[in-house]
Amino acid sequence: MATLRSLAALETPALVLDDTRMERNLARMRTHLQRLSVRARPHVKTCKSLPIVARMVDGAGGPVTVSTLQEAERCFAAGHREVLYAVGLAPNKLDHVLDLRARGCDLNVVVDGIDGAAAIAARRADIPVLLEIDSDDHRAGIRPQDDALLATARRLADGAVVRGVMTHAGASYDCRSRAEIVAMAHRERDAVVTAAARLRTAGFAAPVVSVGSTPTALFADDLTGVTEVRAGVYVFMDLVMVGLGVCAFEDLAISVLCSVIGHQRDKNWLITDGGWMALSRDRGTSAFAVDHGYGAVCDVRGGLVPDLVVHGTNQEHGLVARRDGGALDFARFPVGTLLRVLPNHACATAAQHDRYHVVRGGNEVLATWPRFSGW
Amino acid sequence: MATLRSLAALETPALVLDDTRMERNLARMRTHLQRLSVRARPHVKTCKSLPIVARMVDGAGGPVTVSTLQEAERCFAAGHREVLYAVGLAPNKLDHVLDLRARGCDLNVVVDGIDGAAAIAARRADIPVLLEIDSDDHRAGIRPQDDALLATARRLADGAVVRGVMTHAGASYDCRSRAEIVAMAHRERDAVVTAAARLRTAGFAAPVVSVGSTPTALFADDLTGVTEVRAGVYVFMDLVMVGLGVCAFEDLAISVLCSVIGHQRDKNWLITDGGWMALSRDRGTSAFAVDHGYGAVCDVRGGLVPDLVVHGTNQEHGLVARRDGGALDFARFPVGTLLRVLPNHACATAAQHDRYHVVRGGNEVLATWPRFSGW
Repeated sequence: MATLRSLAALETPALVLDDTRMERNLARMRTHLQRLSVRARPHVKTCKSLPIVARMVDGAGGPVTVSTLQEAERCFAAGHREVLYAVGLAPNKLDHVLDLRARGCDLNVVVDGIDGAAAIAARRADIPVLLEIDSDDHRAGIRPQDDALLATARRLADGAVVRGVMTHAGASYDCRSRAEIVAMAHRERDAVVTAAARLRTAGFAAPVVSVGSTPTALFADDLTGVTEVRAGVYVFMDLVMVGLGVCAFEDLAISVLCSVIGHQRDKNWLITDGGWMALSRDRGTSAFAVDHGYGAVCDVRGGLVPDLVVHGTNQEHGLVARRDGGALDFARFPVGTLLRVLPNHACATAAQHDRYHVVRGGNEVLATWPRFSGW
Repeated sequence: MATLRSLAALETPALVLDDTRMERNLARMRTHLQRLSVRARPHVKTCKSLPIVARMVDGAGGPVTVSTLQEAERCFAAGHREVLYAVGLAPNKLDHVLDLRARGCDLNVVVDGIDGAAAIAARRADIPVLLEIDSDDHRAGIRPQDDALLATARRLADGAVVRGVMTHAGASYDCRSRAEIVAMAHRERDAVVTAAARLRTAGFAAPVVSVGSTPTALFADDLTGVTEVRAGVYVFMDLVMVGLGVCAFEDLAISVLCSVIGHQRDKNWLITDGGWMALSRDRGTSAFAVDHGYGAVCDVRGGLVPDLVVHGTNQEHGLVARRDGGALDFARFPVGTLLRVLPNHACATAAQHDRYHVVRGGNEVLATWPRFSGW
């Protein structure tokens, strides 16, 4: 790395990544999964950046989870052969999946019902497929005891390969205590282990048993029967994870650097150039005990300014006020002051940017890492 | 345009632009502003696409409004010399502004207080500046009768040029009737005309008097004293504009094409691959009489399916249900069915994509237009 630039030399808004915090988050998950003797298949949907993916996987070209075929393409080009596309496959993506596989990518896909299974099997291309299991009534998937499980597997086996089962306990985001998350982790594990056992009894090898969400992954105390854990948000953490008790403010690795551009003294607002285009529209903490509006506010070095919050946004304007609605001390924040805003939801905020400005604890930019997007 | 592709040949999700609807929206605004004898300086923050900007301006290289210096760069490179950067200037963007001006761009900037004015004046570079006026207590700006107006102008005149005044009646989005919007348009006009008169009495030429928001622009009945109108959303329209009574569903020019990827029969949900990454997290209609969730649902040809709504999203999953919560007829929507989702907020939804797939009424893709993003 050549010359260092200070954050103060950037045009705002800009996405900042604190590498020290990220490495700490990665080490925490790595240690935890090693203790549980389960393999990681990190989800790249949060970071969408190859230098970061390389740090998330255990070794060069390690296995990854993706949410788009764009992510699959980028990871495969970077040497990650084992790729799970963890969103139910739309028929219009089948040609693309086959093309990736023909080029040597061991791309596995997901299906959650007999219609999708029929579309994949009809190609008779031995695509490896995981059956999506509903472990939490949250979104998609087949319930583990449902007759549809074996019916879908049989339909698949007609022209594809039943590789196993996967689930995502998205409802862990609605938990409000560590005990609830631990219980959700048990429920998530039990759902896929039950489904895998039923498949094996019916004659399917089903070697893959896959779970994943950052809260359940970190709070699971026993993953017997599970073969891999997918999680993504843990790399950066965010205010939703703080609200769930999964991490502390000091673990949040990304923030949006913005500038104070005006003072609204009558309204007790600072106006910044960090609007929803830079922060995203995500209001993920709105139903939590502490609602962080559009983000919690830090100084330029990343230290929390606990009395401030981004309480409103327009496209390129942020409105920063005191959490208690009280009188702002405008002299503390002259026009030009740099602030760093912590995200409600790291996936959504990072997605608004095309690069990370990498710092290590301080405010010197050590590197710029590109981010990709799209489908 | 060479061979046509059908929307059915695209991988989903994908952003669709109906050129017929867009041209109708553009003609409506053009006719209206001609009747009011006021010039348009269209805002490019909604479309961020040069082929669309070219249709929004009245002639080649016509004047534009931008929300980022990235938009300024792109528009200037495409021949638009007269550019207003309509967000209060952060000091760290001053070098970039001066560089654009040195290259021949007639870039005007905005300031809303004495501190910002001091930073610009200190460069002694005769940058043309508009004073931002607060017409609606909504966000930023100086109130037209405030002493700060003349103090800021005097501070500016020390090294920059007081070009005039501008305001944005963002509070028009909170109106709930045509009468309220008409009243807001009067208030917006009166605020800037009053401020301009005060500046002129004090000896500043202040030739520019600029207003703009799609609702007030379209419902204004008299813009005497105003020299230009900035508006952006009107090019596409959206569900917020439907909710305000500004347009009809049939005027919405963009939609997100997505596929049904699963059936959740117990929950009465269709699962689609149009999640918040494709639709945005914007919930702009949540406080309206009709809450459209994450978007209203159309068939592949753009015809409204009035009983359906996107009631939930994850990153790459949409949950589509009946508005009345009733039982879905799953046979109408087999896996693979294409739907088009109308956006709550066109600026936010378009920002999630890097291109427009252009259709004209039907479902044949006539062109693909690129979109830019970032700062």
